[in-house]
Amino acid sequence: MTNERMRSVLWTNGGLQLIDQRKLPTELVLMCCNTVHDVTRAITDMVVRGAPAIGAAGAFGLALGAKNFHATENSTPVEFLKALEQAKATIDAARPTAVNLTWATDRVVKELRVKVQEQTSVVELVTYTLTIAQALAEEDVAINKRLSQFGAELVSPGSNILHHCNTGALATVDIGTAIGVIYECHAQGKNVHVWVDETRPRLQGARLSAWELMREGVPMHLIADNAAGYLMLAGKVDVVLFGADRVAANGDVVNKIGTYKLAVVAKENKVPVYACVPSSTIDLNFLEGRSIPIEERNANEVTCIQGVRIAPEGCPVFNPAFDITPNRYLTGIITEEGVCYPPFEQSLAKVVAAAEKRRAEM
Amino acid sequence: MTNERMRSVLWTNGGLQLIDQRKLPTELVLMCCNTVHDVTRAITDMVVRGAPAIGAAGAFGLALGAKNFHATENSTPVEFLKALEQAKATIDAARPTAVNLTWATDRVVKELRVKVQEQTSVVELVTYTLTIAQALAEEDVAINKRLSQFGAELVSPGSNILHHCNTGALATVDIGTAIGVIYECHAQGKNVHVWVDETRPRLQGARLSAWELMREGVPMHLIADNAAGYLMLAGKVDVVLFGADRVAANGDVVNKIGTYKLAVVAKENKVPVYACVPSSTIDLNFLEGRSIPIEERNANEVTCIQGVRIAPEGCPVFNPAFDITPNRYLTGIITEEGVCYPPFEQSLAKVVAAAEKRRAEM
Repeated sequence: MTNERMRSVLWTNGGLQLIDQRKLPTELVLMCCNTVHDVTRAITDMVVRGAPAIGAAGAFGLALGAKNFHATENSTPVEFLKALEQAKATIDAARPTAVNLTWATDRVVKELRVKVQEQTSVVELVTYTLTIAQALAEEDVAINKRLSQFGAELVSPGSNILHHCNTGALATVDIGTAIGVIYECHAQGKNVHVWVDETRPRLQGARLSAWELMREGVPMHLIADNAAGYLMLAGKVDVVLFGADRVAANGDVVNKIGTYKLAVVAKENKVPVYACVPSSTIDLNFLEGRSIPIEERNANEVTCIQGVRIAPEGCPVFNPAFDITPNRYLTGIITEEGVCYPPFEQSLAKVVAAAEKRRAEM
Repeated sequence: MTNERMRSVLWTNGGLQLIDQRKLPTELVLMCCNTVHDVTRAITDMVVRGAPAIGAAGAFGLALGAKNFHATENSTPVEFLKALEQAKATIDAARPTAVNLTWATDRVVKELRVKVQEQTSVVELVTYTLTIAQALAEEDVAINKRLSQFGAELVSPGSNILHHCNTGALATVDIGTAIGVIYECHAQGKNVHVWVDETRPRLQGARLSAWELMREGVPMHLIADNAAGYLMLAGKVDVVLFGADRVAANGDVVNKIGTYKLAVVAKENKVPVYACVPSSTIDLNFLEGRSIPIEERNANEVTCIQGVRIAPEGCPVFNPAFDITPNRYLTGIITEEGVCYPPFEQSLAKVVAAAEKRRAEM
């Protein structure tokens, strides 16, 4: 399979093509976005999900804003910048809590501001907007590639890997993080097998990870989240891999609900546990996990599955979207700058510094 | 609410009436069984589920076998016994992991054997088969009542109780085991609150326990199984209660998949964990849990929810129905003869002896 075919976020034929993740796994539908409004809507409606994928989609949204500005207006670079700043505000509002979205659109607009000061023409600015978006997407792919290679070194041939949620090509621009490591093991002929947990309540494992791994031909079995302990106790799990939404300075990991339970049972069974994250997920502003706010989501996610009711009408629900896994349950944290081991305060700070240095040199 | 209204297994109008648990919580449908085949099918298809409820259903199934034998054959007591032994084999094969099923049908057939040796007529044997089944059902209710009272003593007022699967009136003839303890706490005004985990893949928590607890007015919240660890780490769980399908002589507990994971995380967070079981669930033939066979169920339970597909077509699935929780994760085992504590080899043997003595004296 080519990279093109799997990219969840792809600039092609002068527009942005997205895999409609709401339709998976039953249908593979591609959606074409040609305006800022199209992209905003796709983000709001969760056509595209996964922090890095949303970030790239936002940047390409600005490239569409630039293209359409040029086609319809005959104005100055300053007016162009103003239009793009408005487009950025529209796109950012699509998922106000998604840090990567604002991070990506910020980066595009900041670079454009520099170019405007340098007296660049509108025609050049239009081209440049797309260039920045494409660079950002390629950077994501390159980061995942490096991260995956570091991760694959830790996985022995013939391993049974337990994976939580979706961290694949769908959640990123391509490759993925924890699933990236799995792809890399598979490509290296390591003969790995994956236990894909379904990841209630939103079933990202069953709907997305199972679909991705089957397409790549990686041997796998889907399991209910409840079956993970049984497999570990039976000695049928060699390593647990997942991503993260945020990593605190001390290595506490905020990730999809259920990660903590998995990590505790893994530790009890002496199964190594790795979070796989781009260094941009490490947030040194938070010294420890418990100060990070946890989003609670709608009761419908638990009481209804694809519109089918599974609990009594009016049933009270508690639905936290994420949990915090204290650093003591993690064997390591795999990043594009290498694998961090305890004490994480030091190893994570080192990785963040290395990533900053690399970006500065680019 | 009357006992009648809630009984999942009820002999009425010369047949066996079951609450069709597959239809809950959206519909309350009663199913009538008139043959051994009907009962076997109802057990296999999980119209009736929960170890004690299955046991009672099996015993009533033999009563139906007796009734239909009498109606269609004109034979000797020995032939009657042979027919019932065949019926027992058919019924037992419906759920091989459920010890209560074989236990109940064994008891019926054993008592019949004694009667046959006593030269009882076929007409009397038919009546007697129903009498044994009914006594067995009433005994289940009485056992749950005693068990619930012992259990309630262990729960402090204002406790947050985490409950797995369904162990209520639906899983037994009436009252329930772990949910029986909750009902008793509620009746005693202990002001408890229950975290009902949904219990994938079959969702017995979301569909059945939530329905029962809401009907009884017990304060509760439904959670995804994945959220249990988050709540424990946050100090929001005071005790974990569940039932069991089989308890080995050493206190290892075979119960619904996910129990092991829950017990490990509870122990890690110093939350007490109790299995609530009638003594008939204790199987001294198995010295430890790992020699007990674990049933694997159909992939559809994981890939489809109420007929809606949530995983790719052809997705390989591993779906164990139960797991084994080693005795070291249990604080105690609550039975109708009192609470067993480690070393379980001794305390469980004592309880089994006490229950046998009680039955002999009846």
